[in-house]
Amino acid sequence: MHFTSEQRLENGVLEREFTLDGIPGILWTPPSAAAPAPAPLILLGPPPLGLRKAYPRLAARARHAAADGFATATLELPGTGDRPRLPELEQARADLRRALAAGEPVGDEITGALILPLVDRAVPEWRAALDALLALPGIGGPVGYSGGVISIGTRLAAVEPRIRAAVLFAGSYVPRVMFEEARQVTVPLHVLLQWDDEGNDRQAALDLFDAFGSAEKTLHANMGGHTGVPQFAGDAAGQFFLRHLR
Amino acid sequence: MHFTSEQRLENGVLEREFTLDGIPGILWTPPSAAAPAPAPLILLGPPPLGLRKAYPRLAARARHAAADGFATATLELPGTGDRPRLPELEQARADLRRALAAGEPVGDEITGALILPLVDRAVPEWRAALDALLALPGIGGPVGYSGGVISIGTRLAAVEPRIRAAVLFAGSYVPRVMFEEARQVTVPLHVLLQWDDEGNDRQAALDLFDAFGSAEKTLHANMGGHTGVPQFAGDAAGQFFLRHLR
Repeated sequence: MHFTSEQRLENGVLEREFTLDGIPGILWTPPSAAAPAPAPLILLGPPPLGLRKAYPRLAARARHAAADGFATATLELPGTGDRPRLPELEQARADLRRALAAGEPVGDEITGALILPLVDRAVPEWRAALDALLALPGIGGPVGYSGGVISIGTRLAAVEPRIRAAVLFAGSYVPRVMFEEARQVTVPLHVLLQWDDEGNDRQAALDLFDAFGSAEKTLHANMGGHTGVPQFAGDAAGQFFLRHLR
Repeated sequence: MHFTSEQRLENGVLEREFTLDGIPGILWTPPSAAAPAPAPLILLGPPPLGLRKAYPRLAARARHAAADGFATATLELPGTGDRPRLPELEQARADLRRALAAGEPVGDEITGALILPLVDRAVPEWRAALDALLALPGIGGPVGYSGGVISIGTRLAAVEPRIRAAVLFAGSYVPRVMFEEARQVTVPLHVLLQWDDEGNDRQAALDLFDAFGSAEKTLHANMGGHTGVPQFAGDAAGQFFLRHLR
């Protein structure tokens, strides 16, 4: 892990860009007075837009988490931002656009091609990032995962025992195979669903919520479209992490 | 409104039993130091068990609300507790038990007979209680409604303009006609659903949530069965009222 830049944000939050095996990422740490030592860590899953485009919302979440005493970190997803394109993902996105433009239903073949290569590549990268992040001074467990592509969060929560609680955003397509993986998840979950998210399959989100194996799982559904998660819903997610990671 | 008993609970909360046109009720008021003057009021809809059986959970909710500066009041539902039985409700409950015992689906005819007479009778009573409660010194608006039979809360929120926010518990049968009334509701809503509530129709609850006309509506679904609403879900409902009534 190599730090490539460093800046101090308001309220003493330290923002450091890094690369890990060539993958760009960002680490935010709270001022030591505001956090336990070591600070618990929340991995912020980005949307598949590239970190640059997603930065304002990620940084806002990081500042919110820092005020609660959490360090946060994010990682560029495979095939997004400055990382090399992945031809199979580009193909799947083209197939999706074609199906949507033709008004055809988006079948499991398309969603599988769109999501599974991303999950298969991203999850090992996030686990390696976790190794590196937890080796830094001042950062410790327990670890949470928050947001991003819900299938990545699902697989990560299922296979990575250091993840102790997860906030998942049900805002992307879910290939059917993920329902089986969801049954393997047992950590406390807080699932956000934007009820009238035009680009999302509400029934698939509800079915996925139903499938999770966790004894504590909560679904928070709100109005406001894909990007309109209300401030109070973000606050509630923050309280979930405070309950489980502090 | 005649007060029939009075006791001081812990933390200075004053509990007074009353009758209004022969209907028993309970009013809880916070100590004046803990509340705005006048204190905003939350109507606590009881489950159809009778106030005596429901008392422990109602009093717990009242104490929680008092700590947030709210007065709360509840009213015995028609046909429950010490109030005269209603033959048509008793008949509908017998029909429901028979259908459940026979493993038959519970159709709209049964749920309508079970719920609508209760709604038709209870809503005018709650509006009259609101007149009397808001005329008391130290109690004022804005008014919230919380819990109980969701069809009563739906009708009340649709027709009573003094209700400014409602926490609804999706835990009872919903006759189809209520979906139309739900479209008339425009106040902020916080809907609680126990995901694995054996005696509840989850799909009807989701359809009702979808039908509400409110621009701000939130669904909180949790594990734990009908009576297992987790403490953190109660806390979140309290925060909803703080946001909208203080």
